[in-house]
Parts: sequence; structure tokens; C-alpha cells
Amino acid sequence: MAGVRLTSRDIRSESRLVVVRALLAAGEASRNGLAEATGLSLGTVSTIVQDLLKYGIVTESRLLGGGIGRPTTGLRLNADRGRVVGFYLEDRYLEATVFDAALGELTTVEAVSDESVAEADGIIAWIDRTLDTALERAQAKREDVIGVGILLPGGMQRPVKAATAPDAIWLHLDRVRDTLGLPVVVDNPLKAIATAELWLGAGRRVANAVTVSLGFGVGAGIIQDGAIVRGATNAAGEWGHSLLAFEGRQCQCGRMGCVEAYVGVPGIRRTLAETAPDHPLAAEPEDAEGPEGFDLIAALADAAEAGDPAAVAVIDRSAHYLGAALADLVAILNPEVIALTGWAAWPTWRERVAPIVRRRVREDSPGDAAADLEIELSPSCGMEGIAAIALERFMRDIGLVTTRVIPAL
Amino acid sequence: MAGVRLTSRDIRSESRLVVVRALLAAGEASRNGLAEATGLSLGTVSTIVQDLLKYGIVTESRLLGGGIGRPTTGLRLNADRGRVVGFYLEDRYLEATVFDAALGELTTVEAVSDESVAEADGIIAWIDRTLDTALERAQAKREDVIGVGILLPGGMQRPVKAATAPDAIWLHLDRVRDTLGLPVVVDNPLKAIATAELWLGAGRRVANAVTVSLGFGVGAGIIQDGAIVRGATNAAGEWGHSLLAFEGRQCQCGRMGCVEAYVGVPGIRRTLAETAPDHPLAAEPEDAEGPEGFDLIAALADAAEAGDPAAVAVIDRSAHYLGAALADLVAILNPEVIALTGWAAWPTWRERVAPIVRRRVREDSPGDAAADLEIELSPSCGMEGIAAIALERFMRDIGLVTTRVIPAL
Repeated sequence: MAGVRLTSRDIRSESRLVVVRALLAAGEASRNGLAEATGLSLGTVSTIVQDLLKYGIVTESRLLGGGIGRPTTGLRLNADRGRVVGFYLEDRYLEATVFDAALGELTTVEAVSDESVAEADGIIAWIDRTLDTALERAQAKREDVIGVGILLPGGMQRPVKAATAPDAIWLHLDRVRDTLGLPVVVDNPLKAIATAELWLGAGRRVANAVTVSLGFGVGAGIIQDGAIVRGATNAAGEWGHSLLAFEGRQCQCGRMGCVEAYVGVPGIRRTLAETAPDHPLAAEPEDAEGPEGFDLIAALADAAEAGDPAAVAVIDRSAHYLGAALADLVAILNPEVIALTGWAAWPTWRERVAPIVRRRVREDSPGDAAADLEIELSPSCGMEGIAAIALERFMRDIGLVTTRVIPAL
Repeated sequence: MAGVRLTSRDIRSESRLVVVRALLAAGEASRNGLAEATGLSLGTVSTIVQDLLKYGIVTESRLLGGGIGRPTTGLRLNADRGRVVGFYLEDRYLEATVFDAALGELTTVEAVSDESVAEADGIIAWIDRTLDTALERAQAKREDVIGVGILLPGGMQRPVKAATAPDAIWLHLDRVRDTLGLPVVVDNPLKAIATAELWLGAGRRVANAVTVSLGFGVGAGIIQDGAIVRGATNAAGEWGHSLLAFEGRQCQCGRMGCVEAYVGVPGIRRTLAETAPDHPLAAEPEDAEGPEGFDLIAALADAAEAGDPAAVAVIDRSAHYLGAALADLVAILNPEVIALTGWAAWPTWRERVAPIVRRRVREDSPGDAAADLEIELSPSCGMEGIAAIALERFMRDIGLVTTRVIPAL
């Protein structure tokens, strides 16, 4: 990595992003208010605002002063600067959400395919058609679109061959860009959820936070001093593939003993199969990746509610696994907030799961590193995050920011 | 944590630190050279240099141009701005190193106490006397000292009572400051080694690196985008107390299955005791924390060299444990470099341990996240790091930087 600059984040560009995020948080603010909110000098804020006005990212309004004195000029993000479209692509499911340039949600459309498509032309055409539908519904034209972001679940690494629709997009990103005729960015849900939390959630009030996604797969998004930790190859946050147990359960990634093999949905099913092999919920469904996975969680919660001892035991055991694995994040990163998405939102969370998780995290974390830690359910969604990433990419393309871009994306 | 600013790192202050580190790396540089090295504009660099000149952190020299043209003004860190003193304190061992203000090492003195002292007055007087000796040897006066840094091993948390000399310093930091009459900063070796790596080592060429300390205790120092990750309470980096094995070996921290219980020196002894209970090296020494610990490593390496199958098995097993645990750091942080200190420097590292560790890290890391990872032995030492932290603290005290200071320190 010789030749890398001393600092990979260009500091001027970072200041611009900080101002944009402060405006998004405030809705409307004066230059003085922005200086106060960001810690930048009024002079720096004024220079930055001038640049943002010039490129139409920000627009001036008129605020009335608090009472005495002249009215102050207010600033807001310019929602009409253009449209940003986020896509979420699974094997047979495509969702598109149109946002304005202040990340206000305008409309969402869903499309389902009867069969899985792993062939690039078909998928790209599907995305293209769905984009038209979504834009029409949002009363927008394609030339209004300043950025497209595609969420690719699982895509922590560029795949070797196209086995699923997301794989095909990874491998044919240039063709996607050519067909849509638009700037396109792809990223995985871990980074997108963390970005949403950074722009719109806990990242507004704390410097260090971790978002944790609990689904079929599990992983983390790391916010450190106001930026997403991506690492050398955008693979940072793969906490799901860190060890819970050396030489433990086989994980779908090939490694043994990963966190995911215990707290991912199939891992919870496996805990059930170990606890009560003949339990009706322990049977493998035909498509373990589908919604059946989350149905298991809901069914387990219902069974526990009804007093099923095996269900109670599995939920408690899973809560201990999760707490222990979250304590590892505390040991390594010592965040102020851990924000959970996915099955943490299951019905028994508040009554049964959260107390065990919180106690286990506190007990297992070094010293009192978790004493003031907040563990909360995150309202953030990946779609907002991928839209924020696309907006950031747009600012990069017009020269306003110099965010480091991972080559693969 | 309400009320925390949107960005905890003041961006102007960060730019100043970036310029200081660039000058330290270059030795001597022009304003243009600094702009090129840092990615800052020439105007910003000039403003920063003006501030640094005003406070005497930087001094002007005269560089001859490359040939044609006027000579350019060169800049260097002003070594004569003052002296920085680093201390390393164990229970019965005290070391002091005097540095100039460009972090050039001037002299080191060592002091050994016959008995352990956990009583604050005695330890503070000991530090005070050793400071006099070190300054005399460096031909410096106490009023030349702009900062003192004390490395406290193990001190990841403020202790509850003074059981050892480092504990007493933690608990009576104000009295240390009063007695010395100097600004004093304390930190643990994990953060100090990472700081040394950031200012003087791999942190110069890559944005993301992790330093790993392997001793009686083990831990990590995390460099992320040119800054040390400290977390909410300076506890970040406690990788040694993340899980290797759920419900595994008892760790000295109270948790079960920590990485430290497998790759710390006592953990290696335990692996030996499990592998060959009657092996002469498996006997617990009276003082497991003392240098006897590192002697075990050397003795194991010698025994392996001589063909002792138990020693070979233990070294191999420990290398697998270490590789698996480092892969967790790759999964979570995806660094470009992992730099090891401590027992990784043992004689069999290059031939026997490193190949196993590297292969295991590559195999266990998600996807090809470790494909380009460099795993190297770090030449960095905590003493340089704590001096850099003390220098940074001095710049903070005179208002040049606004580095976030963890309350405990």
C-alpha cells in the first residue's frame, strides 16, 4: 500500500460532509447554528456553505430571528436538487425507493419474480423497468436522478460466479451503469444500516456506535468518530464471522465456530435441534433463507409465551450467545451505543431477551467498559443508508467530497 | 451522551496533528511538500504552519532548491521546544526516557526497587527522583519539560484499590501532577504502541492498522483513518478479552474463554500443561507475571528446536490459537497491517510460528479480507508512543489541538 497519503480522508471534504449531515439533522439552520453544531469556525462554515450553495446541495431560506434584530438567513438541504433511488435486491425480490435530495422518502415499489434469475441481462432489465415504475409513481424523470444505490445482501466480497441475482449485479456493475445511464453504487446492508445510523440515528449524538444486523446472516456496521469503518477491502464489520467458539459449529462461510452459526436464524434452529431434536420447529424448511427463517423466530417466541420449555431454553441460550458475542464488540470497540436490527425486534425481545443480553454484555465486557453502553433497537433501515451513500457518491462525483471509494464498489 | 457534538474530532485541530506527523515523517519539508503529503491545500498548510511557528512547535530552516530557482524555506519540528519524558512503571521496575520535542531519544535510565511498593507517596517520590536523574543525564532542567507520560501496564480500567505501583498512580494522578509540577498523562501500552505505530510506523503508510501486544496479557491498539480508536472509556482494543472459546478456559479477568487465556504467556503454559502435564516447563513459577513468563517462551522455543515433541505441539497449537484470534480482528476491522510486539519476537517466529499464523489468518478470515494483509513484527515501543501522547497533550494544553481526552486520563 505504498503511496497512500498520510491521511486517507481529505479533511476539507470531511468538513463538507459534516455540514451536510448537520443540516440534515437540524432541518434548517443558520451559519452560526452550523458552526455551533459542528465545532467548525464560522469562517469555515461560510466557505463550505458557499460551495454547497454553488452546487445546489443547499438552499437558502429566511428564518425570522428569535425576537429583536434582523432576520437570519436559514439554510436547508435542497430537496429539489434531484432524486436518489435505492434498490434492495434479493434472489426473487426487488424493492425500489425514491428519495428527494434531502433524503425524504417519496415512494416505494416492490417487484417479485416467479423464479430466481441469475442471468445478468434479465436482472438488469428488471431493475431498469422497476426504476421506470418507481420514478413514474414519484412523478420524477430519469434525468432528475443524481444517484442510484443498490443494496446487495451477503455481498461482503465480490463473488466468483453469478449464482444469484445479487451476485450477477456484483459481477456486471459496469453493465448496470451503462443500461441505467446513471451513477450506481452498491454496498452491503451492514454498511448501509450503519450509514443510516450515522446520518439519521445514534451517529448524530455519539461518536462511536455499532449497528448489528441479526437475520439469516449476522454482521455489524461500525461508526467511529463520525465515519463508517470499511477497512482495506470493505470487509470490516464481519463480526458474524468472528469466533464464538474455537472449533465449534460449522458456519456456512466454511469456518468453524463463527458467531453467525449461533445467533443467525439457522444457528437458532440448530440450538433448538440440539436442545429438543424432535421439536416440530426444529425441522429444516425447504428454503431456509426465505421468510420461513423469520417465521421460526416468531413461532419460537409464541411457543415460549405459551410456556413451551424447549422454546424458552432456546431463546435464553440464544440470548446468552448474543450477549457474549456483543461483549466482544465492546471489548474491541468500546462503543457508546449498540443498535440492533433484524430478529432483535421479535416479540419477546423486551421482556425476555433484552434483559439477558444486557446482563451478559455487562458481565462479559472488560472492566466497566459496558457500564454506560446503550443497547437499543435501531429504527434505521438499509434503504435510507444506501440512499445516503449514493448522495455522498454524487457529492464526490461533482468534486465536493473526496470520500475514499473501495475499488470493488 | 446527549450534548456531544456532531463530530468529536475538531477538524482544524486534526489538520494540525496531520501536519506535525507529516513533518516528523519527512524530517524536513517545504510547505508545498507538506500540502502534497497531507492532501491539504497550500493555503491551509500555510495557516497551520504559521500557528505552529508561533507556538514554537515548528522551526524554519533553509532548503536549497533542486537546482534552478530560489531556495525554498524548509520546516522541521523544533527539537529544542522542550523535553518530553516517558515513564514505564511496573511493580518494582521504573524506566524513564527523555526525548526532545521532535521525539528524538536523548537518554534512558532504569531503576529497580527491592520490594513492591503500592503506597502512593513512596512511588511518587521514586518517580520524582528518577525524573531528576534522567534529566541530569540528558542535561536538561525540569522547566524544559513540556510533558510527562506514564505507561501503566494492564491499566485498562481505573483500579478500585492500590494493589500495585501502577494502580497507585492511577488512583493518585493528581498528586503525581502536583509533586512533579508538570503536565502528566497516563495510558496503557496498547494505546501507546498504536500511537507509536501511527506516528512513526505502519500508520505512516496505511490508513488502517492494528498493533497486537503479546505478553502475560494480550491486547490490541487500533488505528483507524489516522487516529487511535479509544472508544467511550479508553477500553477499545481489549481484543485479549474477546472470546476465543465460549465457556472455555478461565481468564484472569473473570470471563471464560478469552483470547488471552490461550495466547497470553500463562495461556501457553496451560496449553503445555494440557498437552504434557509432566513436562518440566509446565510447572507454575512462583511469580508468573515476572520475566519468568518470557523465559518460558524462550525455553519452549529452544526445546522445539531440539526436537521436543511436546514443545513443538504447544508452539503449533498456540500459533493456531493466535491465527484464529487475529482472524477475528480481520473480520471486524479488515486492517491493511497487523503489527505484533511481545512474544511474537521469540526465536522460532520466522521459521515455525509465522507461517502457521499467516495461513490460519488467511483461511479463517471472511472471503479474501486477509489476501493483502501484512502481518509483521512491530519495531514500535510503548515509550515512544507515550511520549507522542504527551506531546499531543502539550499541543492540546496550549490550544493547538482539541484531541478528545478520556476523562480517566
